[in-house]
Amino acid sequence: MDTLTYDIFPIEGGVCAPCGFYADGVSAGFKPDEKLDVAFIYMDTPCEPYAVFTTNRFQAAPIRHYLQEVSGKESNFVLINTKNANAMTGKAGIEDIHLVLEALKQQFPQIQNPISSSTGVIGVRLDTQKLINSFEKFTLSNHSTQSATRASEAIRTTDSFAKQIALRVELENGESFHIGAMAKGAGMIEPSMATMLCFITTDAQIPQTDLKELTDKNLHTTFNAISVDGDTSTNDSLFVFANGKSGAYHKQAFDNALAIIMKKLATDIVKDGEGAQKLVAFRIKGAKNQQDAICASKALANSLLVKTALFGSDPNWGRIASTIGASGVQAYEERLKILIEDICVFDCGTILFDPATEEKASKIMQKDSFHITCDLGVGDASFTAYACDLGHQYVKINSDYRS
Amino acid sequence: MDTLTYDIFPIEGGVCAPCGFYADGVSAGFKPDEKLDVAFIYMDTPCEPYAVFTTNRFQAAPIRHYLQEVSGKESNFVLINTKNANAMTGKAGIEDIHLVLEALKQQFPQIQNPISSSTGVIGVRLDTQKLINSFEKFTLSNHSTQSATRASEAIRTTDSFAKQIALRVELENGESFHIGAMAKGAGMIEPSMATMLCFITTDAQIPQTDLKELTDKNLHTTFNAISVDGDTSTNDSLFVFANGKSGAYHKQAFDNALAIIMKKLATDIVKDGEGAQKLVAFRIKGAKNQQDAICASKALANSLLVKTALFGSDPNWGRIASTIGASGVQAYEERLKILIEDICVFDCGTILFDPATEEKASKIMQKDSFHITCDLGVGDASFTAYACDLGHQYVKINSDYRS
Repeated sequence: MDTLTYDIFPIEGGVCAPCGFYADGVSAGFKPDEKLDVAFIYMDTPCEPYAVFTTNRFQAAPIRHYLQEVSGKESNFVLINTKNANAMTGKAGIEDIHLVLEALKQQFPQIQNPISSSTGVIGVRLDTQKLINSFEKFTLSNHSTQSATRASEAIRTTDSFAKQIALRVELENGESFHIGAMAKGAGMIEPSMATMLCFITTDAQIPQTDLKELTDKNLHTTFNAISVDGDTSTNDSLFVFANGKSGAYHKQAFDNALAIIMKKLATDIVKDGEGAQKLVAFRIKGAKNQQDAICASKALANSLLVKTALFGSDPNWGRIASTIGASGVQAYEERLKILIEDICVFDCGTILFDPATEEKASKIMQKDSFHITCDLGVGDASFTAYACDLGHQYVKINSDYRS
Repeated sequence: MDTLTYDIFPIEGGVCAPCGFYADGVSAGFKPDEKLDVAFIYMDTPCEPYAVFTTNRFQAAPIRHYLQEVSGKESNFVLINTKNANAMTGKAGIEDIHLVLEALKQQFPQIQNPISSSTGVIGVRLDTQKLINSFEKFTLSNHSTQSATRASEAIRTTDSFAKQIALRVELENGESFHIGAMAKGAGMIEPSMATMLCFITTDAQIPQTDLKELTDKNLHTTFNAISVDGDTSTNDSLFVFANGKSGAYHKQAFDNALAIIMKKLATDIVKDGEGAQKLVAFRIKGAKNQQDAICASKALANSLLVKTALFGSDPNWGRIASTIGASGVQAYEERLKILIEDICVFDCGTILFDPATEEKASKIMQKDSFHITCDLGVGDASFTAYACDLGHQYVKINSDYRS
């Protein structure tokens, strides 16, 4: 690691912030009221993306298409539609993608190896004509803050707000590079894979091996550490496109900036979990090993009883203890400590839960975001998982017919 | 297997139906309005129970007490309290049990090796004096249908109805024996252990080895196959007491009667899942092996997205497919079949989901109980898990302060 220092600044522009990236969102009529529902990212310089996909056995058609026909090649286009996941659609789903992408290349001959990405309802054939008809609204040269925002709006499904971010990294030698990103989440966010749609763009001159290494490293503590409802979708995808156009690169700086971007989008997704009002960090400390730390923190992030207690601002630490006990990790009542932020409620077998403590803890739990720490007192491993509360809105959104 | 035939008849009397068992429920003041909250079972003939406990690492004090001091011995008394789980209470929790059981034996010298069993809030010391004061209301000789019903009422927590059952088994040679049972459930019902409090009594002259074998066998397809919210409590316990007083026994007959009793109580518990309106059987067929069949059916039983779709009567089979795909079992889109009762919605890669089919499927899902079948088309293994829907009531019950 060299000793060059650097600065990281937030900037406007989302996925269009890095040099050479263009994006926009249009309406194809999938959503009602001419809401934006189709987005694209175009690159004037093709590059080979690094991609991570869902671990679901039934990968959606766009993922199968990418793996079979685009992977390992340079691409300069991503087409994203909402309201239809093109999942469980078999060979027909792939044929639909061929039809759509052929029409796309006919209209825009500069496009090469386009990538299809979809999110929405599973098990319904794509309305290819509607999608193709929307191409006439595409202006590939758009790369403004507004057009990036439209793209981030278009990829929303049950998201209550659009999620995008961009950073400029200035190196000590005067060079700089940019990273931009947009994501959609809400519901079906499970802490064991890429977990949603996320598109990251950068003009850093990052080697492909670093791109893989740093993406995987940061995935572990961000998108792979969040939970809304413990379900894992058929479409979850993360793409990172690096075109090298800035000519600048610094590994540690890129790593730090990527961590900021991925942590921000991941926590935005949890905050925006269907019907969620609170973002909670479950910090496990003192675990026997990393596997136990991950297991216990994700068990808390996924427990219905814990998540409904969060919704009710109820410092019912017994449910937290019980969930750790049920998770299968090495733990002992006489070594366990449970803290709601700085309020210790259980200390190695001693219950510290008088009415005054309870009131303080309940106050903390009324905040928008807070952390709960469980020290298992067994070893040195730690992990933090992020989750939202589970309230009436979640049930409403997901029980309404075909949400 | 001999060829003796037998008949099984439903009878009144719950845990008091078998000869030699006495039970009642009284009010100790743990619940408001003098509701019944303490129950006991007394046996005039002591016996060594077969017991199965929670897999939670933090076993509640009553379970630790049983394992340390009662296990392997003959007992003739079970004391059950609600509203306090006596869990996460460390050594003090055990000392509280000693205090209570000593007072009990002082008052009733005929009691030997009494068992303590608790359910309720975790992490609060037991009010031992209140519990001890309730002993003056005990009449050990009560063994009526009414007193058994009072006992089953007293062990309720968030249960909306009391759960008990009794059967008389008549053998061809004129002999007969009885099995009775009561249970409490609702919430924290996880499909990987005993899952709640359940007390089974029988006067069958069953050998201890058969008692273990047949209980374990039936557990697998009943209490271990149900899910309300995927959480596993600190207190889950199943006790089977066999005093042999009838002098009668027939292995196959006992097995069948036990299966009826355990299936009835297990499905009653699911039906009564916090806020549940529907009982759904998730049948997995054609799995590679038993492990895969169990894994896939339990994944469906635990999926929030599936359970909220059940609540909304939405035949959103894409969520069912996605959940199977995410469960990690061997499965292929082109071999999978999904049926909502007799309505096939997905057949080996072909979507059979026109508006007419959808309407039929939605009608089925409006019923109180129905089954969903997924044929993985991979092997010969099958398993059925039972779950309830998840609606607003679940959130309400569990977010209300210290429910």
